[in-house]
Amino acid sequence: MCGVFGVFGHREASNLTYLGLHALQHRGQESVGIVSADGRQLHVERFMGLVGEQVSPEAIARLPGDLAIGHVRYSTAGETHIKNAQPLACSYANGAVAVSHNGNLVNARELRAQLEQDGSIFQSTTDTEVIVHLIARARKPTFVERIVSALSRVRGAYSLLFLTEGMVVAARDPYGFRPLVLGRLRRSRRGTPVHVFASETCAFDLIGAEMVRDVEPGEVIVADARGLRSLRPFPETRRHFCVFEKVYFARPDSVLDGRGVYDARERMGQTLARESPVAGDVVVPVPDSGVPAAIGFARESGIPFGMGLVRSHYIGRTFIEPQDKIRHFGVRLKLSAVRDVLNKKRVVVVDDSIVRGTTARKIVKMIRAAGAREVHLRVSSPPTTHSCFYGIDTPSRDELIAARHSVEAIRKFLTCDSLAYLGRDGMMEAVGDPQGRTHCDACFTGNYIVPVARLGRGRRLHA
Amino acid sequence: MCGVFGVFGHREASNLTYLGLHALQHRGQESVGIVSADGRQLHVERFMGLVGEQVSPEAIARLPGDLAIGHVRYSTAGETHIKNAQPLACSYANGAVAVSHNGNLVNARELRAQLEQDGSIFQSTTDTEVIVHLIARARKPTFVERIVSALSRVRGAYSLLFLTEGMVVAARDPYGFRPLVLGRLRRSRRGTPVHVFASETCAFDLIGAEMVRDVEPGEVIVADARGLRSLRPFPETRRHFCVFEKVYFARPDSVLDGRGVYDARERMGQTLARESPVAGDVVVPVPDSGVPAAIGFARESGIPFGMGLVRSHYIGRTFIEPQDKIRHFGVRLKLSAVRDVLNKKRVVVVDDSIVRGTTARKIVKMIRAAGAREVHLRVSSPPTTHSCFYGIDTPSRDELIAARHSVEAIRKFLTCDSLAYLGRDGMMEAVGDPQGRTHCDACFTGNYIVPVARLGRGRRLHA
Amino acid sequence: MCGVFGVFGHREASNLTYLGLHALQHRGQESVGIVSADGRQLHVERFMGLVGEQVSPEAIARLPGDLAIGHVRYSTAGETHIKNAQPLACSYANGAVAVSHNGNLVNARELRAQLEQDGSIFQSTTDTEVIVHLIARARKPTFVERIVSALSRVRGAYSLLFLTEGMVVAARDPYGFRPLVLGRLRRSRRGTPVHVFASETCAFDLIGAEMVRDVEPGEVIVADARGLRSLRPFPETRRHFCVFEKVYFARPDSVLDGRGVYDARERMGQTLARESPVAGDVVVPVPDSGVPAAIGFARESGIPFGMGLVRSHYIGRTFIEPQDKIRHFGVRLKLSAVRDVLNKKRVVVVDDSIVRGTTARKIVKMIRAAGAREVHLRVSSPPTTHSCFYGIDTPSRDELIAARHSVEAIRKFLTCDSLAYLGRDGMMEAVGDPQGRTHCDACFTGNYIVPVARLGRGRRLHA
Amino acid sequence: MCGVFGVFGHREASNLTYLGLHALQHRGQESVGIVSADGRQLHVERFMGLVGEQVSPEAIARLPGDLAIGHVRYSTAGETHIKNAQPLACSYANGAVAVSHNGNLVNARELRAQLEQDGSIFQSTTDTEVIVHLIARARKPTFVERIVSALSRVRGAYSLLFLTEGMVVAARDPYGFRPLVLGRLRRSRRGTPVHVFASETCAFDLIGAEMVRDVEPGEVIVADARGLRSLRPFPETRRHFCVFEKVYFARPDSVLDGRGVYDARERMGQTLARESPVAGDVVVPVPDSGVPAAIGFARESGIPFGMGLVRSHYIGRTFIEPQDKIRHFGVRLKLSAVRDVLNKKRVVVVDDSIVRGTTARKIVKMIRAAGAREVHLRVSSPPTTHSCFYGIDTPSRDELIAARHSVEAIRKFLTCDSLAYLGRDGMMEAVGDPQGRTHCDACFTGNYIVPVARLGRGRRLHA
Repeated sequence: MCGVFGVFGHREASNLTYLGLHALQHRGQESVGIVSADGRQLHVERFMGLVGEQVSPEAIARLPGDLAIGHVRYSTAGETHIKNAQPLACSYANGAVAVSHNGNLVNARELRAQLEQDGSIFQSTTDTEVIVHLIARARKPTFVERIVSALSRVRGAYSLLFLTEGMVVAARDPYGFRPLVLGRLRRSRRGTPVHVFASETCAFDLIGAEMVRDVEPGEVIVADARGLRSLRPFPETRRHFCVFEKVYFARPDSVLDGRGVYDARERMGQTLARESPVAGDVVVPVPDSGVPAAIGFARESGIPFGMGLVRSHYIGRTFIEPQDKIRHFGVRLKLSAVRDVLNKKRVVVVDDSIVRGTTARKIVKMIRAAGAREVHLRVSSPPTTHSCFYGIDTPSRDELIAARHSVEAIRKFLTCDSLAYLGRDGMMEAVGDPQGRTHCDACFTGNYIVPVARLGRGRRLHA
Repeated sequence: MCGVFGVFGHREASNLTYLGLHALQHRGQESVGIVSADGRQLHVERFMGLVGEQVSPEAIARLPGDLAIGHVRYSTAGETHIKNAQPLACSYANGAVAVSHNGNLVNARELRAQLEQDGSIFQSTTDTEVIVHLIARARKPTFVERIVSALSRVRGAYSLLFLTEGMVVAARDPYGFRPLVLGRLRRSRRGTPVHVFASETCAFDLIGAEMVRDVEPGEVIVADARGLRSLRPFPETRRHFCVFEKVYFARPDSVLDGRGVYDARERMGQTLARESPVAGDVVVPVPDSGVPAAIGFARESGIPFGMGLVRSHYIGRTFIEPQDKIRHFGVRLKLSAVRDVLNKKRVVVVDDSIVRGTTARKIVKMIRAAGAREVHLRVSSPPTTHSCFYGIDTPSRDELIAARHSVEAIRKFLTCDSLAYLGRDGMMEAVGDPQGRTHCDACFTGNYIVPVARLGRGRRLHA
Repeated sequence: MCGVFGVFGHREASNLTYLGLHALQHRGQESVGIVSADGRQLHVERFMGLVGEQVSPEAIARLPGDLAIGHVRYSTAGETHIKNAQPLACSYANGAVAVSHNGNLVNARELRAQLEQDGSIFQSTTDTEVIVHLIARARKPTFVERIVSALSRVRGAYSLLFLTEGMVVAARDPYGFRPLVLGRLRRSRRGTPVHVFASETCAFDLIGAEMVRDVEPGEVIVADARGLRSLRPFPETRRHFCVFEKVYFARPDSVLDGRGVYDARERMGQTLARESPVAGDVVVPVPDSGVPAAIGFARESGIPFGMGLVRSHYIGRTFIEPQDKIRHFGVRLKLSAVRDVLNKKRVVVVDDSIVRGTTARKIVKMIRAAGAREVHLRVSSPPTTHSCFYGIDTPSRDELIAARHSVEAIRKFLTCDSLAYLGRDGMMEAVGDPQGRTHCDACFTGNYIVPVARLGRGRRLHA
Repeated sequence: MCGVFGVFGHREASNLTYLGLHALQHRGQESVGIVSADGRQLHVERFMGLVGEQVSPEAIARLPGDLAIGHVRYSTAGETHIKNAQPLACSYANGAVAVSHNGNLVNARELRAQLEQDGSIFQSTTDTEVIVHLIARARKPTFVERIVSALSRVRGAYSLLFLTEGMVVAARDPYGFRPLVLGRLRRSRRGTPVHVFASETCAFDLIGAEMVRDVEPGEVIVADARGLRSLRPFPETRRHFCVFEKVYFARPDSVLDGRGVYDARERMGQTLARESPVAGDVVVPVPDSGVPAAIGFARESGIPFGMGLVRSHYIGRTFIEPQDKIRHFGVRLKLSAVRDVLNKKRVVVVDDSIVRGTTARKIVKMIRAAGAREVHLRVSSPPTTHSCFYGIDTPSRDELIAARHSVEAIRKFLTCDSLAYLGRDGMMEAVGDPQGRTHCDACFTGNYIVPVARLGRGRRLHA
């Protein structure tokens, strides 16, 4: 998963981008990059690691210009390498271009093979590089036409920001899988508006920008010296916004697709309480993502809410595992259980989702060790049964516990007294799409709207 | 403020100490140190910064032995220097000794002056160094007698761990200002028990140790090859446990003084709701420390609880301030407001305490900017009117907003619609001490049980 | 300037490459990179900075395989960026390829423009990327044929090492501007020979390899599972080995072009002494590169040799300039003058070359400040009057003091009592090429054997 | 071994100290520290590692004031720890004091034991801490008297710089074992002279200061607001300047004890050539310390001088040893052999001293591998047979090859064709002390002028 951010028209464009990426850090912690443009050329800085630790004042100083785009990238196994850090920047026949990509192209391998047959070389293992090649090979007179030409050949999920010497362009795939929003900052000194783009509105809040609207599915928005222009170059289709963004991925203070994330999660908890009630003494969230759903569950069920699990703020990068038996004592750095809340209680634990089940199992044990009489797990989304091919880094199917096991089998593995998931309909209702027509729920249903040619990772040509 | 941890009798003593300090990280983020003993000599490693970022596997490997003590230190202005990092380690006539100190001695300056008159030199600006000098000058035959001799001369707050080549000694001042607990790890390979000491029980939970009991006020506990011994060398007095530990400082999952911290905080919120009710639509905590009190307030008042402020997990160390007007847009990295929870609502914000008022003011503004109709601030402790001289790093009185201003004046400054603090009696009731006889509340009352000779910082002899 | 190194057939290929690059560090200090191949894929590690400081054991561990190539790159103004670090690695239609390049292509800009017209994208500002594109677009059945096809289109100076999943290929331009040598390591465990390639023989000495021979100008050598093969695909031409490598750039213990560098330099000094004798009391080299010539000068002239200038071994990276007048006192970290050698003497200083003249001027002043009665500067090469377009980073002509000034004018600027350069014929004689037919001396004569289309740096498409 | 530097009366005192320590880096590479004084208090910065890599502009900015002293420390086995970094800084009854020490006290252990008996604590394992304790316990009215009182109790080698809030004091032991010089910088802005102190004059050259004179053996020089004062508080004795400083340790451009180091070394080489002539074709130094002696040997013998061994400038800190047989190939990073100079020659190698013999043995083999017909080793000092207890880090006697073996046995071990050392008388003559009355030569003779109580390292109380 990734986060993108862009600015047009502010003399501290790279600094704003740095701040915007800070707010989007939850969307990717592996690498961070910013590319700025000063009218004549692009300036690139990319780092492995966190925005707040890697991007120095010196790096910002090396990024002059009124335009910038940035990117944070999520760590996926085996591909952790600076060469895959974005924004990708290159020159081609018509100048320089940089691109930030959130999403996943399902026909990247075929396109890459074709491009290589035609003589292209690839320096990363990302599908994003395909887009740049298609732009470079598009025989069209304008940059925007080249983008449209390129995007008409790719299939899958993309929320993209492009940067040239004097232009920022935003584009979102026709299904609108990934979020992308347009915002505006108070006027710059010169009285012209400052346009900003971000994966989520929380990035606007941090820099004091106001949200204007979503970049619409299938829309291309151009910000340049002449102002803002909107294009709709692609045939319209039904939107398929990723429901998992609302379940887990996005920040609760973001507004996605016109609706607040927190609100959706609270509703999921409420619906879950109605669908799968349980006699309990306290409702406890798995922090932080499970909190709104737990609050909703508590409110609906009337069972008191309690912060029975505490999350540490000081997880370091170099945890030193004891060699000895200490690990069996249950070393646990990230979460700790609050005995006051749990002891002698029938505890209803609310989490947003269960992937492999290993963490949930540890949490159940931790809660029991803190004295809970019963542990009832409630999950505010349906069983995760399928991998995502549109940008979320779900593990492969055989690692998904719900892909192979019944709810009862999962309950036994987790060692909890009861287990219930939110139904698919309840989830859709909670996100304001009761018919389930405008969201992608492939990870819960296997209903892949964009066919995935060959499911599986290609050979990696170089690491 | 500081946190201490110690182990006797485990072959991974330094690693356990590392983990224990991890759990105590909230008690101090400036420096971290571990000293181990292997029967013949002490090994010292000290670093500026966080446990999880500074202590490497290589450092642990340089800390052999079955005994260890550690320390995390809080950053106080002007004194941030590696020379003040603890444990302090030195040699003297009878061998080597290291010490970890949580607390503050009120007669350190006088003792230091006397010791210097007698020819002692000081290499740090900490009061802890005084204790080691007193030990070195105590003409007593045993190490424990030397400790007792030294401690009988100091006044103030101390929870101490000492380490020699073959012994760990814990000591707590007669008032019991600062917490200190004794725990036990399952037997070591050799079948002997492993004794552990920590500032808070949360450190035991992380390593799987069980709490045995508090080190009692005025008690000295010796752990050596012969086992555990308890001494009560000091005249008994009334205990004065720091109530601010329960209000704010300690971790909610810790058990202090026999009672859970979470529970105390939730009760504070409940009492506060009874004392200062307000018509509201949602109760919102200032995370993370305000959460239990907000839950208590919500429960008691019947007003729904909502997570209207979200705390970021990715605060970096090198935040780059924009030079321009951006800062006026309200850049805010640590907390963000959730519009879903706050918009058009009468919001009751619950925080544990207000020190200078500047953060609270920003929070009120942030909540209003997210659409709140009214903002009512409820503080789950009394007005902080006095500095602490027993170990908490409260700023000097003239920086404490409540030292100079009425509640109404503070309300105006904070720009909230109403403001109320928990009463002193309500707080004491919440911590299970309705008569207020066993807690120190000097920061709320100015009632300093141990006289503070000269209030004010001494000249710093070298920085 | 750059250095290249490659290994075929050793299970510690990346470690050998690391060592080889260490020996070639003088050829480039900006960045270092190693790419290894394990039969299936390539592994890439690139860093800004020095071999011995940046390449960690962990990085070597991430570079498995029996084949590897490496590169050290020299810092040139404005282009210091990790994206330009080599080896360049990419995938294309026929697999993966990496390349290390020493030299400079004079038609890179035209080729780049053509490639971009055909749809290629460029991610660096190096001319090396052109070569990879040409390979990717060569419609030839084998990798070696693709290399030959690509190289037949480029003009200029190149000593190249290519790496594929199972092959190392070395290639040198028909003029042989830059050095490239073939060596052999004692047999590997499996009894097969280990082939090594390097810019200079000093890299072989370090790893205990023996030199076999030069890669000949215009030769392509292929090392793969079938052994070594040599190709001569290009029309033969007169060789033009860079005489400046012998004057200054190469290490004195290297054998270039069949002759020792030290020996050539000593001869230059001898010839210089014959050509421009001077009455002096001591001959002093500018260390380290001026030492052999100074020894030769002393020997020929009979004037005693003395180490009157000492070079510091501890130049740090973060030299802190005093703000005040101290700088006028003559702060000088790299060289210092030895009064014992210089005081009251007529000093003959021998340096290998003068570029801008600023350093030489400081040296003259330093020697005078140490008490020298006279300072006579002797330069063991002709005046540097022209820029190099074949790989040496000489500054542009207008920065070359000899391009614009007479010897007498230079002498005045340098404030020395006399100044003489070695003649072009003398230099050629010293390098064993009395007719001056097999060396490139363009930097001394402007005689550019390969025409340089447009002298000047192209626009940088992105920095 | 260590280097010290101090400044009185310059507003960039800490920056000058930084530069001075840079020039003294050869005297110690383990740690570096600077303490400055601004009239009211001392400021301390200490680091492990090199001056140019560890001391940042930020650190210099944290060192305000017109006075400063600094220290570089040599790495000795087992004691590498920041707690031993100097200057040592502390406060005591009369204020703050910092000290930089070059030398070694022979009665430190006894004094430490007495001080500990009297109640002192020690936080380092250095003998320097003893001095500070003695100062703190000296019941004298002035700082200078306290220094004199303290120094009258220590025995051994010391060149010391003290810093208080407003004073720099230099002191040198009555024997004058270690160098210490007084210099002057051009007047400061206010027209007052700036006094500087350094271990060697090369530090003055770098900052543009002029040497005034040696701090005399037994002299104490005080620099404060009143100017410079000289005291001679100790009974006079014969001076015993360390001859090994002249043989090897000091920089060749320094003037020690009134005579140039380079000159002394060249004379040693000349005398050696007379004492132990040999038929050879080339004289080759082991760089860098062997260069002046080799030049002297060549001059005297008439055998040509050649730079047959080249020293690398790029020794990194993280050399990665190959696991395999490569090491047997003779990996050698620091020195390399120049075939041009050595091949088919009878080589006379000149080194300044032989300690364990292992490096010399490798050098002999390296020279032979480069084609030398004969290798004759000439050492420009006598056999090193005894450890130094006055500050040079010679290994213990059983590691000194000459302590246990005859010259012929050493020659066999080194595998050279002949071996000769400079005689003790010849060495003394070369340093201008033909009677050998004013130099300490204990490492060559065992003639320890200051009795060493118990030869051997004391138990380390804490590491």
